[in-house]
Amino acid sequence: MRRRSRTSPATVLLSGGLDSTTVLAIALSEGHTCHCLAVDYGQRHRVELVAAERVASQLGAASHRVVAVDLRSIGGSALTADIEVPKNRDPAEKTVPITYVPARNAVFLSLLLGLAEVVGARDLFIGANAVDYSGYPDCRPAFLTAFENMASVATVAGADHGQRYRVHAPLLDLSKAEIIARGQALGVDYGVTWSCYDPTGDGKACGQCDSCLLRRRGFEEAGVPDPTPYSIQR
Amino acid sequence: MRRRSRTSPATVLLSGGLDSTTVLAIALSEGHTCHCLAVDYGQRHRVELVAAERVASQLGAASHRVVAVDLRSIGGSALTADIEVPKNRDPAEKTVPITYVPARNAVFLSLLLGLAEVVGARDLFIGANAVDYSGYPDCRPAFLTAFENMASVATVAGADHGQRYRVHAPLLDLSKAEIIARGQALGVDYGVTWSCYDPTGDGKACGQCDSCLLRRRGFEEAGVPDPTPYSIQR
Repeated sequence: MRRRSRTSPATVLLSGGLDSTTVLAIALSEGHTCHCLAVDYGQRHRVELVAAERVASQLGAASHRVVAVDLRSIGGSALTADIEVPKNRDPAEKTVPITYVPARNAVFLSLLLGLAEVVGARDLFIGANAVDYSGYPDCRPAFLTAFENMASVATVAGADHGQRYRVHAPLLDLSKAEIIARGQALGVDYGVTWSCYDPTGDGKACGQCDSCLLRRRGFEEAGVPDPTPYSIQR
Repeated sequence: MRRRSRTSPATVLLSGGLDSTTVLAIALSEGHTCHCLAVDYGQRHRVELVAAERVASQLGAASHRVVAVDLRSIGGSALTADIEVPKNRDPAEKTVPITYVPARNAVFLSLLLGLAEVVGARDLFIGANAVDYSGYPDCRPAFLTAFENMASVATVAGADHGQRYRVHAPLLDLSKAEIIARGQALGVDYGVTWSCYDPTGDGKACGQCDSCLLRRRGFEEAGVPDPTPYSIQR
């Protein structure tokens, strides 16, 4: 694998959550000039889009943009259709939960690839995670590799100039606690991030959806105080 | 390659243009139940979205939906950014034109894949064409194959149940004239389709953009009357 210049541009998928914020901190620490992309896909937890903008600015990204993709027209997920978000589900359960959004990472990475073509980046960063992935197929290593192969023939730089795109998923094998510890070491302030799938009206995290459960447990296991305002305390 | 049931569902990327309309007619003629997807990506030629709805209804698709993706936030193309659409360009020119939208087909096929997951389809139809493709890398066979490989690990059906997605591009090796002849044989009324990238205010096709030039030449070569109202006659 050829190493790229440490000042080369990179594109970073930034949701404003704990994982993608840590990924941005990692990409910046490697010296990349980071162009961030948040996706407004009609998610219930739109507060994360505000968090993404705050995170990009606070961490020093070169640019940040929001791309709207109305995945509600496709449906099929509790995150985008009128289906209830499951509560207090065992995150270790192996079946694919209803919060899975069909082909979400394929769509998101394709947008990130489009942005990479525009800013001249060959490195794409995503917070995919195979430990706490809740069974999502598009968070697995086989998918990321297949996407790299596709990206390298989908684009002008790849198809006509033989350049190779790399999808970096530096959190793939880390537990939530390890991710938090990594971010802490890089100086990330997790108070600006957002994870909850189903926030309450008063701007608090529900404390019970998959994403809240994973986040709470992560902070506990990392021995780091959780800055999140939860609606339901334990 | 395993043949699928002739009544199996399929998803069809439908722009409302000549190519995708012919593809829908082909998928229907093969007995598929067709779920169509048009993408509203902030294109200048939004009139094609109206055409897509008309086409889906007239040809008898099982469903049709429009997914909005604001590719303008990414930019980099005359079709989505504030860059002039080139006129009277030689369509045989081998460089990638400015109307190329970065990673467009990767984004569009990923959306089509999401829809396929929702409706239970394994067959995706797209009007990609390698003859008149104007040099777009994401209209080449290598891209379509790489996308199939990615799709088959990106999804629950693929990753967890070993099912294989197929990307059908039945027009890949056909000239525009051959496409028109094929559609005529299937009874397609091309009067409902739309191709122009840069329509005039009075609802006519410009007659000079790449897409108009290819369309005009196609009808001429096929010896079929062109039903398009052009702003500039030749």
